Amino acid sequence: MAEPRLHHVGFVVADVQRALPAWQASLGACRVSESIHDPLQKVTVAFLQPPAADAVQIELVAPAGEGSPVASFLAKGGGLHHLCYEVDDLDAHLAGMKARKAIVIRPPKPAAAFGGRRIAWMVTPERLVVEYLERAPAASNY
Amino acid sequence: MAEPRLHHVGFVVADVQRALPAWQASLGACRVSESIHDPLQKVTVAFLQPPAADAVQIELVAPAGEGSPVASFLAKGGGLHHLCYEVDDLDAHLAGMKARKAIVIRPPKPAAAFGGRRIAWMVTPERLVVEYLERAPAASNY
Repeated sequence: MAEPRLHHVGFVVADVQRALPAWQASLGACRVSESIHDPLQKVTVAFLQPPAADAVQIELVAPAGEGSPVASFLAKGGGLHHLCYEVDDLDAHLAGMKARKAIVIRPPKPAAAFGGRRIAWMVTPERLVVEYLERAPAASNY
Repeated sequence: MAEPRLHHVGFVVADVQRALPAWQASLGACRVSESIHDPLQKVTVAFLQPPAADAVQIELVAPAGEGSPVASFLAKGGGLHHLCYEVDDLDAHLAGMKARKAIVIRPPKPAAAFGGRRIAWMVTPERLVVEYLERAPAASNY
């Protein structure tokens, strides 16, 4: 089992496609993805890789559709929103975090941005929003 | 010259010492620092290392003193606040970011949390707050 790894930091914006060129310019980033609309997750996302030795990406996230999980955060102004860790065993990881009183706010679902790999969202009692991304693809999705 | 590296993600709280035990418990973190009061930076900070393969820490930051740079953010509820990159040449890095239209919001000053190494704060036109930490100690401070 590999240890969790910080995969990206999420930043909520109003419109990913409109925001992306300016972000790319100001960070001096290599654009690492097109913007991806995910109707299941109700978000549009894109990933930027800042010029850094680590591989931690910045994810731009915008609401897409009714009841998007980031709509209320955007209404308050947007900005830095969550940390996403890549983990080997998603279900075991969620169970471990639940035992530490974190709450699942979005149960595991496949994510278009990660080729169908499952993600889940939790919030700790201290209001840190954490996304977990399953390292291996779920067998049922392939 | 080594490339920049994501050193920590800052999260603004009201009281670092009060928050730290709960954060340590919910993240399953190894506490990597005591809380450090920095009158020059007008903040109190502490660092947590989540159980992860990377070395990206979470910094809890609370205002300390009149005119603290995080006071207004706390007044709006606190939360994820900034990304801090460790860089070789702080001044050259700031110049590069200025050329990309980022603005210096706190010019380089020694930071108690980093043994007197200099830090500076910028904000990009997209409202990403970025802290830069000088990798080598500044000669004048030693």
